Amino acid sequence: MRFEHAGIATDNAEGLAFLYEDLFGCEIVHEERFEGLKLLFLELDNGYFELLEPVEESPIGEYLEENGPGIHHVALRTDDIGEALGRAREVGVELIDETPRRGAWGHEVAFLHPKSTGGALIEFVQH
Amino acid sequence: MRFEHAGIATDNAEGLAFLYEDLFGCEIVHEERFEGLKLLFLELDNGYFELLEPVEESPIGEYLEENGPGIHHVALRTDDIGEALGRAREVGVELIDETPRRGAWGHEVAFLHPKSTGGALIEFVQH
Repeated sequence: MRFEHAGIATDNAEGLAFLYEDLFGCEIVHEERFEGLKLLFLELDNGYFELLEPVEESPIGEYLEENGPGIHHVALRTDDIGEALGRAREVGVELIDETPRRGAWGHEVAFLHPKSTGGALIEFVQH
Repeated sequence: MRFEHAGIATDNAEGLAFLYEDLFGCEIVHEERFEGLKLLFLELDNGYFELLEPVEESPIGEYLEENGPGIHHVALRTDDIGEALGRAREVGVELIDETPRRGAWGHEVAFLHPKSTGGALIEFVQH
């Protein structure tokens, strides 16, 4: 299990990407419209920033209204997302996604409910 | 620049560590009392979770009161924290720590102000 990305909710993905490029020396490596979001991925040496900007109605828009911009979730990469979800179920963690679904960048993803994980929204990702 | 850890604010570091061990297959590799906090580090393949529990008065206690438990910051590892801070200054980012200071685990650390980084609290770490 390894860090795959930190997801940052923002109302200006492009502006933030330009800043992060200069600030952290990273580059945009993927861009996508996905479920009402404009997504930009910036590559670091061992993972990514995923910048999430709502362009249609989206839970990220609601999140921004309630919390303002900032760190929205952390994604952990696994080679076997089914096994990872099985273990989560075994230890009593509530799942937002009971089974893996197709997420951004064509990866298989599933979110764990933050009320089960100490308030942290955690995403499993399998490439 | 690479992910070093995700910092999770919690009122029960030990309980959350036990859960994360089972859930993510990671282990506690470092434990420390630091600036009014009980800190537990859990090792993943390419970084750590840092669990932060206030045991005395601490900004993390205020954070918990305002926001509840959850993802507090993301730390990026650099080989030259002075250069990283210099670049941050150049691009107009406000710094919480103008110069590196001794952080947890004996590392050199400096925090950037979230109002300059899209609401995300980012820490630079140099081992």
